[in-house]
Amino acid sequence: MDTSYVIGIDIGGTNTVFGVVDARGTILYNGSIKTGIYEDINDYVTALSNGIKEVIEKAGGPGVIRGIGVGAPNGNYFNGCIEFAPNLPWKGKIELARLISEQTYQIPVTLTNDANAAAIGEMAYGVARGMKDFIEITLGTGLGSGVVVGGTLVYGHDGFAGELGHVIIRRNGRPCGCGRNGCLEAYCSATGVARTAREFLTNRTDGSLLRDINPEELSSKDVYEAAVKGDKLAQEIFEYTGNILGEALADFIAFTSPEAIVLFGGLTKSGDLILNPVRKSIDENVLKIYKGKTKLLVSQLKESDAAVLGASALGWEVKEG
Amino acid sequence: MDTSYVIGIDIGGTNTVFGVVDARGTILYNGSIKTGIYEDINDYVTALSNGIKEVIEKAGGPGVIRGIGVGAPNGNYFNGCIEFAPNLPWKGKIELARLISEQTYQIPVTLTNDANAAAIGEMAYGVARGMKDFIEITLGTGLGSGVVVGGTLVYGHDGFAGELGHVIIRRNGRPCGCGRNGCLEAYCSATGVARTAREFLTNRTDGSLLRDINPEELSSKDVYEAAVKGDKLAQEIFEYTGNILGEALADFIAFTSPEAIVLFGGLTKSGDLILNPVRKSIDENVLKIYKGKTKLLVSQLKESDAAVLGASALGWEVKEG
Repeated sequence: MDTSYVIGIDIGGTNTVFGVVDARGTILYNGSIKTGIYEDINDYVTALSNGIKEVIEKAGGPGVIRGIGVGAPNGNYFNGCIEFAPNLPWKGKIELARLISEQTYQIPVTLTNDANAAAIGEMAYGVARGMKDFIEITLGTGLGSGVVVGGTLVYGHDGFAGELGHVIIRRNGRPCGCGRNGCLEAYCSATGVARTAREFLTNRTDGSLLRDINPEELSSKDVYEAAVKGDKLAQEIFEYTGNILGEALADFIAFTSPEAIVLFGGLTKSGDLILNPVRKSIDENVLKIYKGKTKLLVSQLKESDAAVLGASALGWEVKEG
Repeated sequence: MDTSYVIGIDIGGTNTVFGVVDARGTILYNGSIKTGIYEDINDYVTALSNGIKEVIEKAGGPGVIRGIGVGAPNGNYFNGCIEFAPNLPWKGKIELARLISEQTYQIPVTLTNDANAAAIGEMAYGVARGMKDFIEITLGTGLGSGVVVGGTLVYGHDGFAGELGHVIIRRNGRPCGCGRNGCLEAYCSATGVARTAREFLTNRTDGSLLRDINPEELSSKDVYEAAVKGDKLAQEIFEYTGNILGEALADFIAFTSPEAIVLFGGLTKSGDLILNPVRKSIDENVLKIYKGKTKLLVSQLKESDAAVLGASALGWEVKEG
């Protein structure tokens, strides 16, 4: 039987998107459901499964699907469960992989967190194709990461490895959503950029286009737009952010000495505004033996597709029965 | 042909020690030569090879030796070379594995750095036996590390992964031998403890047994002996050191989520004086999802044997021809 496609599912707090993907990373058929409206996990899985079955039928029926990969906040690869996911409506430990498989022709389901899925997608279809050692950093609302060593994603003994957004980059620094202080994510993420903007505007007196915006509503996009217009304060926010990210990446290089670090997500759209300070900071901070060896790459996966592609790549891991 | 033994070689700046090791980690025959007296690498290899041949004869001849493992400062697993090793007499890139093999019955030789060798030894014969994910931290003159993921040592794309002594734990902190500032090794190592002692003695006015010692000659052993006698300042030096080490280990856990962190080397002889603050600090600093999951273990390998055992464990990696 020909099993030449996989299904990717990306579960976000608002929407769940899914698609049928071929071996070259093309999304052939896709769909989505609302995540937040299902208070009961069983109702959610039924709705999701119905949506998936529709795209499976379009692709040729369950016989052509090799596996289903799911990217979900705090998804655990080892036990197929989601746990402690503050942005999802269901509490406690949920055996999501089993539930989806049971309602979807018993197709094998593999689950991981969204940043790990992005790393796997990058390796299967993106700029890390063919690489054995790289680190994917997702710069979205938060900072996520997926570490690949020897061609395999690092899950750790419990499935929770690679929380690099919660490495402490400023001891006793900014409070982080995790309850600690000074996490990398509190500085180097869309929300981190907005926080830096508010700090700069409060602590400095120089003019800036950003002063026309209600500080509470300031977003990283506003900072980007001001920086592009030549706003010096906005540009310095990116320098500050890039410098801190580079410091952290220099330390990460000392851990796994990766061939590349791949940046992914909204903040990378700021291009050289953020990339130049990151590059400079890595170079200034990295240990001599690593200097100039690790490439800094930006993901070329379309952001709207990347989450589904990343999750789908997990589907290829399934052994043919 | 029975190939039931391996050879371990540990190359230090002063001495090179070697031994024939069996599968249970017993050193059957051993020997050593002086490292520093050979200015020419060829003379060194000849002397080393002659020493090894002697122990090989005792063990039953080259036919019983499966492989030779070498632990050397800055040893590179991928190319079998040593490079940038400031404490060894030979400059430039030296193809040590090839040279040793050529003079030693063409037995396959595998090389890595000393901390990686310690990690492999721990996995083969020590407290990490059977573990797939752990981090070995060697607390000697400096701080070395070997990271094991999925049962395999992490070498990175260039063979230089795992330099955790050079993660920056105090931004703009103490100068480090590597030319940067604030490296973990500058605080958490035998020399780091001595530096902390000198800082405390300079910056504080309270009495201490350590004030009787010439500050330039103060060693971590002096601090240990004073602490055991109840000296408060000396005890606080260990608390300070352990606290910083725990901060770093908490970050390392977020990287690979290891089952255990294994501490090895001279500083671990200080026992609970250092271990209690390390444990407390990990617990205070680690991200919630990891709390209480990673064991903190102390290597039980005899320090005099561990370097040879660790190096020898590499010898088992050789495929039987």
